[in-house]
Amino acid sequence: MMAFASVTLGQEAPASLAEKIGYGRDAKLLIVHADDLGMTHAVNAASIQALESGLVNSASMMVPCPWFPEIADYAKNHPDADLGLHLTLTSERVYLRWGPVASKEKVPSLLDSEGYFFHDWNAETRINPKEAELEIRAQIERAYAMGVHPTHLDTHQYRLIVSGKELFEAVLRVAHEYHLPVFVTRDWFAEHPYLEPSLGRRDIVVDHTVTIEPTVPAEKWAEFYTKALRNLQPGVTEFVIHLALDGEEMRAATRERDTWGAAWRQRDFDFFTSADFRRLLQEQNIKLISWRELARAGKRE
Amino acid sequence: MMAFASVTLGQEAPASLAEKIGYGRDAKLLIVHADDLGMTHAVNAASIQALESGLVNSASMMVPCPWFPEIADYAKNHPDADLGLHLTLTSERVYLRWGPVASKEKVPSLLDSEGYFFHDWNAETRINPKEAELEIRAQIERAYAMGVHPTHLDTHQYRLIVSGKELFEAVLRVAHEYHLPVFVTRDWFAEHPYLEPSLGRRDIVVDHTVTIEPTVPAEKWAEFYTKALRNLQPGVTEFVIHLALDGEEMRAATRERDTWGAAWRQRDFDFFTSADFRRLLQEQNIKLISWRELARAGKRE
Repeated sequence: MMAFASVTLGQEAPASLAEKIGYGRDAKLLIVHADDLGMTHAVNAASIQALESGLVNSASMMVPCPWFPEIADYAKNHPDADLGLHLTLTSERVYLRWGPVASKEKVPSLLDSEGYFFHDWNAETRINPKEAELEIRAQIERAYAMGVHPTHLDTHQYRLIVSGKELFEAVLRVAHEYHLPVFVTRDWFAEHPYLEPSLGRRDIVVDHTVTIEPTVPAEKWAEFYTKALRNLQPGVTEFVIHLALDGEEMRAATRERDTWGAAWRQRDFDFFTSADFRRLLQEQNIKLISWRELARAGKRE
Repeated sequence: MMAFASVTLGQEAPASLAEKIGYGRDAKLLIVHADDLGMTHAVNAASIQALESGLVNSASMMVPCPWFPEIADYAKNHPDADLGLHLTLTSERVYLRWGPVASKEKVPSLLDSEGYFFHDWNAETRINPKEAELEIRAQIERAYAMGVHPTHLDTHQYRLIVSGKELFEAVLRVAHEYHLPVFVTRDWFAEHPYLEPSLGRRDIVVDHTVTIEPTVPAEKWAEFYTKALRNLQPGVTEFVIHLALDGEEMRAATRERDTWGAAWRQRDFDFFTSADFRRLLQEQNIKLISWRELARAGKRE
C-alpha cells in the first residue's frame, strides 16, 4: 500500500528541480551568483577572489563591457568555473558606458543618440525584439570567439525577463539553440504572466531568488542575508549579488548614485566571503550548487 | 636700406609658426600634451589633476574608449580647457579593449576576429582608408553629440600619420571640414615623405616634438625631460606625454607589458606636475601655449 501510494504521489507531484539533479525534495540548494563581471576591473577582481574562496560559486559576464577580455581570459583558463553570460542591452551608468556588440546599423532601436545602449528602458522605449535577438546572438558569438564556453544565460537588470513576452521568447529561442539554460525563477511568474506559458518542458525553473534592494540600509546588510539564509526554503534558490572592490575606479564608475555602487558591492563582497556566511551555510545545512549541475536537469528529461 | 633688406628677408623666410601667433622668432614655446584621455578612469583622474595644475596644458581624448563619457563631461564643463580628439583605430591592450564608434559592418577592415580594433597594424593589415575616414568622422560626431568642442585632432599611436599618404590625407580632409588643426611636426617629414606635400598652406606644422621612449630607464625619467627642456629649440615644440595614477585599475589594464604602463604614466605625472618642472620652465624662459593659440595661425593666413 505504501509503495503504491508513493507511486501515485510521484505521478501527481512531478519531480522537483532538486530531485531532477539527484537531491531530496527537502534539500536546501543555493547558487551564490555574482552579476556584472566585465563591467570594471574592480568587479572582475572582487568576483575572481570570491569565486576562488568557494563561497560564491557562479557568476555571469557582460560581453559588451570594456573589461570583458579580462574575465574572458580568466574563464578560458578556468574551464571548471561556473561562468555564464549576463546578456546586456542597457548601459545604466553616466561616466562609464558601453554599446552593442552587433553592428550599430542592425540594432538602432537599442541605442541612444550617442550610440550607447540606453541608460534605461521605459514605457516610451521601443525595443525591436528582432534587434534584441540579433544583439544577444552577437554577444554569445563573441564569447565563443574568445574561447569562452558559458554555462548559462541571464540578463542584466532582468531587462529581457520583465519587458514582455517577445523579448523573453527571443532569449529562450537563442538559449535553446545554444543548449544553454536561462535563469528563470517561479518567483517572477505572478508578476509576469507570459513567463510560465513560454517555457518548454526542458527549461529550468529555479524555485526562488533573493537579491538585496535599496530599501536595506548599509548597516542591515549582513542581517538581511543572514535572515534570508535562515529562512531559505527547500529547493533551489539563486542569490543574485553584485561584487566589486570599493576603490577609485568603482567609485568613479558609480558616483552618480549609491544604488549598486562601489560601497554596496564591497558590502556584498565582504558578506559573501566571510566566515559568518560559511558558518551559516553549515548551520542551515545549505548546499551550494552551480548552473553546471542544473543544466543536467534540462538534459535529462 | 635696412627696411628694404628686412622686407627682402621677410619674403625669403616666411613667418614661423611662433611669429604667426604673435611671438618672436626666438621664443621657446611649448605644448605639454597628455594623450589617451578616456582610456581608463586612472588616466582621466591624473590628466584632470595635471591640467588643473596648469603645468600640463593640453590633452586629447579617445572617443571609442569606455571612460570617454567621464572626460567628455569634464570637457563640456570646462570649455576653456584645451582638449582635442585622439583619433583611435587600434586597441593595443589585452585585458581592456574597445572597438569602433561607426557601425561594424561599415568598417570591417579595422576589426579583428573578435570585433575590436586590431591590437596593432603591421605589413599584413589592410586598412581601407575609406573605412578609416568613416570611423574618424563617427568619433568626431559622437564627441559633438556629447557636447564636446575639440580644439585639435591627433592620432593614437601616430597610426594615421605613419601608415601612408591615403590615411594621412583622410585625416586632413576631415580636419579641414571640421576646421580643426591636426598635430603634425616637421620632425616627421624626413621619415614620411608624403606628409609635407599633402599639407595645405593653412595647415599648422609644429616645429618639434619630444616623447619619451622605452629605451629610457625609469631612474633616468626626470633627467631625460630636464635635458629636453634645457635643449629646447626656439619655435613651437609639443611634448607628448602619457599620464595615469598607478593603481589597481591601470596596473590591470597594462599588465602584459611595462611600456606605456601604469608605472610609466605615474612617472610622467610626477615629473610634469613637479616643482622641478615649473622651475625649469621659468629658468629656460619657456612659455606654455595651447592648441587654441596655434589654431589662430591657421585661421589668419
